Amino acid sequence: MTQNAILLIIDGVGDLPSKKFTPLQMAKTPNMNELTMNSVQGLMSPIAVGTVPGSDIAHLQILGYAPEKYYIGRGPLEALGANVELKEGDIAFRANFATLLFGNEITDRRAGRIESKTAKELENEINQCIQNLNRNGLKIIFKSTVEHRGVLVLRGKNLSANVSATDSHKLGKLEICKPLDSSAEAKKTAEIINMFTKIVHEKLKKSKLNLKREFPANIVLVRGAGIYRSAPKFEEVHGIKSACIAGGALYKGIAHYLGMNVIEVKGANATKNTDLHAKGLAAQKALEKCDFVFVHVKATDSFSHDGDVKGKVKFIEKIDKELIPLLKKTDAALIITGDHSTVCALRRHTGYDVPILVYEKNGRKDGLKKFDEISAMKGGLGHILGKDVMPIILNIIGKAKIYGS
Amino acid sequence: MTQNAILLIIDGVGDLPSKKFTPLQMAKTPNMNELTMNSVQGLMSPIAVGTVPGSDIAHLQILGYAPEKYYIGRGPLEALGANVELKEGDIAFRANFATLLFGNEITDRRAGRIESKTAKELENEINQCIQNLNRNGLKIIFKSTVEHRGVLVLRGKNLSANVSATDSHKLGKLEICKPLDSSAEAKKTAEIINMFTKIVHEKLKKSKLNLKREFPANIVLVRGAGIYRSAPKFEEVHGIKSACIAGGALYKGIAHYLGMNVIEVKGANATKNTDLHAKGLAAQKALEKCDFVFVHVKATDSFSHDGDVKGKVKFIEKIDKELIPLLKKTDAALIITGDHSTVCALRRHTGYDVPILVYEKNGRKDGLKKFDEISAMKGGLGHILGKDVMPIILNIIGKAKIYGS
Repeated sequence: MTQNAILLIIDGVGDLPSKKFTPLQMAKTPNMNELTMNSVQGLMSPIAVGTVPGSDIAHLQILGYAPEKYYIGRGPLEALGANVELKEGDIAFRANFATLLFGNEITDRRAGRIESKTAKELENEINQCIQNLNRNGLKIIFKSTVEHRGVLVLRGKNLSANVSATDSHKLGKLEICKPLDSSAEAKKTAEIINMFTKIVHEKLKKSKLNLKREFPANIVLVRGAGIYRSAPKFEEVHGIKSACIAGGALYKGIAHYLGMNVIEVKGANATKNTDLHAKGLAAQKALEKCDFVFVHVKATDSFSHDGDVKGKVKFIEKIDKELIPLLKKTDAALIITGDHSTVCALRRHTGYDVPILVYEKNGRKDGLKKFDEISAMKGGLGHILGKDVMPIILNIIGKAKIYGS
Repeated sequence: MTQNAILLIIDGVGDLPSKKFTPLQMAKTPNMNELTMNSVQGLMSPIAVGTVPGSDIAHLQILGYAPEKYYIGRGPLEALGANVELKEGDIAFRANFATLLFGNEITDRRAGRIESKTAKELENEINQCIQNLNRNGLKIIFKSTVEHRGVLVLRGKNLSANVSATDSHKLGKLEICKPLDSSAEAKKTAEIINMFTKIVHEKLKKSKLNLKREFPANIVLVRGAGIYRSAPKFEEVHGIKSACIAGGALYKGIAHYLGMNVIEVKGANATKNTDLHAKGLAAQKALEKCDFVFVHVKATDSFSHDGDVKGKVKFIEKIDKELIPLLKKTDAALIITGDHSTVCALRRHTGYDVPILVYEKNGRKDGLKKFDEISAMKGGLGHILGKDVMPIILNIIGKAKIYGS
């Protein structure tokens, strides 16, 4: 019997044909092809047919957590991914260093893609200058993560996540944070964000770290507000021990949120240069102690957002060459899919189904020879939903609870 | 990117095999075949697997309005389709001229399929003779539409739609309208209908227009009572501008109900002689201003109710020849399906799945060659529900809201 399973989510892997074929069709994937011949395939709608999911929502659903119940917003998930320990009721935002010039104009949303080291030094300056705001039970935590990215957490009483973003994804006049309802909590939270923005700007514009920067990192913008509420642990929900191997903060954050064991892998950085070999070895090791290992690979989605078909094809080939063989060497069942289809020609998430492959030793086979969107149309698994994935896995590894007797 | 879409609903197009093949299989459809080769196909259960839907319910669901929430009864929808402007709370019925002879016996439910012109003259006589009933805030509106058909609207306070029909679809003794619950409103409404029936009969039996008729149109029967409540507009619900091109009153009524732009097309009359070419041209024109055009073709359903397989096959061929090429000439995505399967051998609606074809430029293809119930079993879209249709369309035209971030 198959005792454990690996779920490999290749972010945004589904696509439309570019000229004649999709990236998955074009990629030379001998290792996945061999796997395919011993698998069943299908097409999956992560949420519902045609629905366009964000990565956060799609992952929650695929991992067995109905997003309408468990989605807490992007901010808290990113904060958890940045290893900020959240408490019930914390308000968390995604944050980014940006450049404010000419009095009140955002001229670069990424402060010239500031390097992580400098950002970390600015983080210290920020946390010093906002000490004055930390009174009457309020605590503000700012943490920089990768390059211009970071997270901001407000902890205290009478706060609300129902406030507008100061980062509108556009350049131009600085946006003010506004309450989105008439509650005292939303008003108070918006005021705190606006004070934070002002104090930080006053401090950073004088920072010597910014003296020589073409795009000084002199302001911090926020978006994706959410209120943290804990979720039931993955082990309680599914009755299995689990681990997560991912480079991206969001995916690690989701795993933290669900109480999975998040394994830090050196070189796994969610970029196009991520160390897939190291991730494969980490997955092998994790299986020694876990029933279920969730492996996430991000760069396919990034290539799609860049409209880079060739890059996406090459990266799929890299996955096939560097990661798949290591996963195949285990005795685990192997489920491969994406969280959504990110279409290169459109450079965005879409609601097209994602192919899913289910391999287990001595399992059923549908006789297909390639893992892609078009093959999957004829797959033995048919059309499934994201919420079907965990039950399929639990069934294979013998951990599904019988319903009735 | 595909900017807009046409949804072509061929009413009752699904069928069972007649001898060996279904009408869709038998029809020679070179234009649809070519489309099929660049599309994905599937099978759709308009409401739920096996459920037999009425046309009204099926259309509401396919257009994204859950019937359990938005179905207001056939009467109000037909009244809207007859261009009667309804107000919140109006009670509306389908009505038809019939023949009452031998004191109290309905001998023809359609008054010898009275011609529209004569019916219109009788409408005037009716609206004169019922003036006495229009008091204490009550207003009665009768409108004849096509041949024996018409609508009756009661406007006023303390009315109910919970009353029985006077048209029981059978010949024989005239049915009395009865309250279907013990409320004062239902009792009052039934009394009004019975008074209306009596006064109209007294008037029409003496009408000179009836003197020479073998089947005098001397009574008006009603059925399909419903209470009008407005629904949220299509543009609010889906965020897109829409138009409807249909001949039948019900379909125009549904479009009015949903706030779609109903385009009147000369020669589009929902009969076997409808001007499909004119409808195609109207669809092309509508796309200039709309994101979404719903085109409805009725006669396939009528042929099925008549048990006329040959007629159904020929009409499908007419659609393929006169309508499809005009729709294909646009840049729009093209979704073709039916609202239900009307089986010629049974002469009624059934719960068998309906084939659905989804074409978009540069979209996924499943390699099928013919659009029919049997091909569709192998289609890349799999088995979907009526409620999936609008999300599929919104995704294709880039108007779906992302769920999550």
